[in-house]
Amino acid sequence: MSKLRALLPALANKTYFNYGGQGPLPTPSLEAIVDTWRRLQELGPFTEAVWPMLGGLSSGLRARLARWCGVSADRIAFTENVSAGCVLPLWGLPWQAGEEILIGDAEHPGVVAACHELARREQLSLATLPVRDLPGDQSQADAAALAALERALTPRTRLVVLSHLLWNSGRLLPIEAVAQRLAAHPRQPWLLVDAAQSLGSVPVAAAAAAADIYAFTGHKWCCGPEGLGAVVLSPRLLAEGRPTLIGWRSLRNENAAADSFHNDGRRFEVATSCTPLLAGLESSLALLEAEGSDQARLERIQKRSNALWQGLRDLPNARPLLPSAPAAGLVSFKLHRPDGGAIDPAAVVRTLGAQGIWLRSLPDPACLRACTHLTTTEEEVVRLLQALAELGK
Amino acid sequence: MSKLRALLPALANKTYFNYGGQGPLPTPSLEAIVDTWRRLQELGPFTEAVWPMLGGLSSGLRARLARWCGVSADRIAFTENVSAGCVLPLWGLPWQAGEEILIGDAEHPGVVAACHELARREQLSLATLPVRDLPGDQSQADAAALAALERALTPRTRLVVLSHLLWNSGRLLPIEAVAQRLAAHPRQPWLLVDAAQSLGSVPVAAAAAAADIYAFTGHKWCCGPEGLGAVVLSPRLLAEGRPTLIGWRSLRNENAAADSFHNDGRRFEVATSCTPLLAGLESSLALLEAEGSDQARLERIQKRSNALWQGLRDLPNARPLLPSAPAAGLVSFKLHRPDGGAIDPAAVVRTLGAQGIWLRSLPDPACLRACTHLTTTEEEVVRLLQALAELGK
Repeated sequence: MSKLRALLPALANKTYFNYGGQGPLPTPSLEAIVDTWRRLQELGPFTEAVWPMLGGLSSGLRARLARWCGVSADRIAFTENVSAGCVLPLWGLPWQAGEEILIGDAEHPGVVAACHELARREQLSLATLPVRDLPGDQSQADAAALAALERALTPRTRLVVLSHLLWNSGRLLPIEAVAQRLAAHPRQPWLLVDAAQSLGSVPVAAAAAAADIYAFTGHKWCCGPEGLGAVVLSPRLLAEGRPTLIGWRSLRNENAAADSFHNDGRRFEVATSCTPLLAGLESSLALLEAEGSDQARLERIQKRSNALWQGLRDLPNARPLLPSAPAAGLVSFKLHRPDGGAIDPAAVVRTLGAQGIWLRSLPDPACLRACTHLTTTEEEVVRLLQALAELGK
Repeated sequence: MSKLRALLPALANKTYFNYGGQGPLPTPSLEAIVDTWRRLQELGPFTEAVWPMLGGLSSGLRARLARWCGVSADRIAFTENVSAGCVLPLWGLPWQAGEEILIGDAEHPGVVAACHELARREQLSLATLPVRDLPGDQSQADAAALAALERALTPRTRLVVLSHLLWNSGRLLPIEAVAQRLAAHPRQPWLLVDAAQSLGSVPVAAAAAAADIYAFTGHKWCCGPEGLGAVVLSPRLLAEGRPTLIGWRSLRNENAAADSFHNDGRRFEVATSCTPLLAGLESSLALLEAEGSDQARLERIQKRSNALWQGLRDLPNARPLLPSAPAAGLVSFKLHRPDGGAIDPAAVVRTLGAQGIWLRSLPDPACLRACTHLTTTEEEVVRLLQALAELGK
């Protein structure tokens, strides 16, 4: 069993499969947050004695995230959540009326709504890239995604929006290959990647370094506190993008308002945020690192997700969405009655919740989603499969 | 002595005058945050069992802030900080090229830089409203501010940006009278009020209800945790303003991206934030309420700030910026040498900090700022005055 598991009080009283919604917070990470708050009160809260501690927290976490993402620390901006990381830089790009945004058809409604609003304002058009039902195994799916991209690109395409790991189906998309293709396009479209489900579950360095905007949160697969994420920005975005929300953290000289924005990722940071959370995420990332390399961790995640996926295939009343074993820890599936009739996913969530087994329903496609992480045990997978089998009787 | 003071570990080892930078966090508020995190792990973090608790925290704090601000709860949007509260709604307003933004000359560089960037994008012009050196007592200053406004308004004025309580001089501005004047202007300019220094120090209900955007933070005079603030939005802003940063919290139906934004303040909320902070701010506001009405609390704040202001006037080497007693707890002043030469404010901050007395320097005008709150004792004011007198020798 994972050493990490013993540090997670959330897992003590439930069978938990909602890592993709929110990861459990390890006790040492909560303690790190509280210790930081106490130290902040002891030294500060607003004194010259406290700045070195806060500066060290910030630069330490920025450097660690940069290592995870395979980029230099100046490309990282801290954000409150994934949506802010996706959208803040978007509003600052130099748009021209008539340009086109190409959005994957499995993106989160938040980023889709933001793109609709951006398109309305800047008189852009929107097109959809079908990636929700890619066929076959990973290499077949990658080829199909790239072929779909080829068909969808137009001379007006200026932005492509995709997730690294689709939140609904669990499919991994070939972000580096997409970035390469876009680099060869005459307009060199920007590549925005929603990495909500990838950091902490799959190795991200190649994709994060290839995208223009690679936005993630600490509170899902990284098991950090809610309210803290970051975004990796490409050098060309940092050069061409203007800050949007603007506050003292965006400014190189806090005392001079006239265009003295930071040239690095901080130009997209805004103002005061909850600094103790930095210590919590730092602690959680360190605990994950102690469990092994990102590849080793992924293999453990896959071991459980693949067992769950296989078990679902073997159930007479279930059908996984993915036609091949999941690339990471997201396993989505549909349930049906013995007579073939549909089962309401929300009702299943409530029924299993009453048994202390927590997964979630998704609206589009209507399905259930169970996530396995490092901390998921073989017994938990068996328990879920048994509970699902019972529903089919 | 204030009951609150005994609950503030930050005040145990220092003489603190930086409430306008960040307020100390009461121990019960930190405990409320930690208890919420523990309960969140016990029930969740992502389960149907945890939503009622989180929903209750959010609606409870929204209702409390609405009472403080004299508005209905649907006019409140939670934000991460004051800058986000100021700027998020601004980007969503329907601008027309050639319109003018009128900004007070004592605004924080963050909001000034945001207005510059907005003006660049939307081809607006910028003008300055001089309020930094208003003369006389409060009623003379109010009259002078309104006269300055009268001179500065043009037919193109579409937005006025002012603070309720100026962060540098401590002057209180007549926000309701400004709002009344703007309502009579043919273009009915929007009124954005930076309330960073007012909520928790002065009664805000009349001003908050009169402005279109009244943005504040919980971590200064309210003594809540850093990383949580809110903004009060006017009904017309909610009707005419479009959301900008957009995430699941902006959407009425989280599962449908196509223009289903909330009609209330939530249309300017974004996505996941640190929910336990809500419990911390709720606790701190309740502790302030227990100290007396907002008017009674202000009188206690003024008692100390006025004693400090008078003491500074009596020092041979100091000169307060305000020509009359401060309206709230901000007391800014200049120091000079016996020979009349200037003293570097940053050096004074370091020297006094080494004695455990913390105030801050400000760049424009170059001065020192000491804040008194409910928790400031008579002895602390005396200690500061003595230390400043020593510097003049």
